[in-house]
Amino acid sequence: MNGDSEANKAAGGYREGRRTRTCGLVLRLLAMALTLAAAVVLGVDKQTKTVPVQVGSGLPPLHVPVTAKWHYLSAFVYFVVANAVASGYAALSLLLLFANKAGKSRALASAVAIADIIMVALLFSGSGAATAIGVIGHDGNSHVQWGKVCNVFDKFCDRVAISIVLSLVGSLAFVIMGGLAVLG
Amino acid sequence: MNGDSEANKAAGGYREGRRTRTCGLVLRLLAMALTLAAAVVLGVDKQTKTVPVQVGSGLPPLHVPVTAKWHYLSAFVYFVVANAVASGYAALSLLLLFANKAGKSRALASAVAIADIIMVALLFSGSGAATAIGVIGHDGNSHVQWGKVCNVFDKFCDRVAISIVLSLVGSLAFVIMGGLAVLG
Repeated sequence: MNGDSEANKAAGGYREGRRTRTCGLVLRLLAMALTLAAAVVLGVDKQTKTVPVQVGSGLPPLHVPVTAKWHYLSAFVYFVVANAVASGYAALSLLLLFANKAGKSRALASAVAIADIIMVALLFSGSGAATAIGVIGHDGNSHVQWGKVCNVFDKFCDRVAISIVLSLVGSLAFVIMGGLAVLG
Repeated sequence: MNGDSEANKAAGGYREGRRTRTCGLVLRLLAMALTLAAAVVLGVDKQTKTVPVQVGSGLPPLHVPVTAKWHYLSAFVYFVVANAVASGYAALSLLLLFANKAGKSRALASAVAIADIIMVALLFSGSGAATAIGVIGHDGNSHVQWGKVCNVFDKFCDRVAISIVLSLVGSLAFVIMGGLAVLG
């Protein structure tokens, strides 16, 4: 009876271990896809608008095409690089954990968990930077006389917002993976 | 002989466990102090400068006092709040872990470790936001026509930089605590 219950417990533990492992792998795949999508959405973001420019009083305004590109702002460059690095790391760790099938190597699991926490730091600093610039671009700031730009480059700003949301959901997956490693 | 070695191992494990625990508590104290310092340094940051303003051609410039305050920029407000929250949490968790002397409650240790990872996310997003604004304030950005302000408010910007460095070192302590929880 006692032996049976022990065996059941062991089987339950094994099943639970497998479930946690599967959950971890799915989360990692999700994190990889979302951070890759975030990097791509902002990495190809570009919008050209024709803006009227007053060259002199009495003269009609000159219509000049102006382009907004993601790499004009260092915070966006950092955001794209951070998401690309996190996505690449997620892919690599997925391969390593898949090769380590039975979850045998405790050292590998620990190393991946620590790297996951570092990715949380990297991704959230990127999102913070991109959001801070996005907020100024959207609202402007009268105190430092930084004008808003999203009224002109509306589509560009929309894609920045989408990219930040994608990255945040991806980062959340890394936070949950870190939490699972602590509990596991 | 075998029994002796087992006993030594157990004693070693206990000693190592105690050392890790002490290291964790010292790190937590450090994290609390650094994030508190970061919040205070930026939270009291203020600089007034007399700036010449041209009111009309031919007239002498008017000297107007202009003040830079930390709460003029939402990224700085977020940074101060994030660091204050992290510092308060570090103090609370320090008390809880101290009360849980022998490290008996595994549930408490896990909850604290997960909260530590959430603090990593919070602090790094704050540092990312403050740094992104700091970089624009320091260098300006010609593409979006945001002028630099640190040439005028030099001391204000210096204290922003000090605050960000303090916060980053404090965040690093949270990262290491998360790593220790994964290994422990």
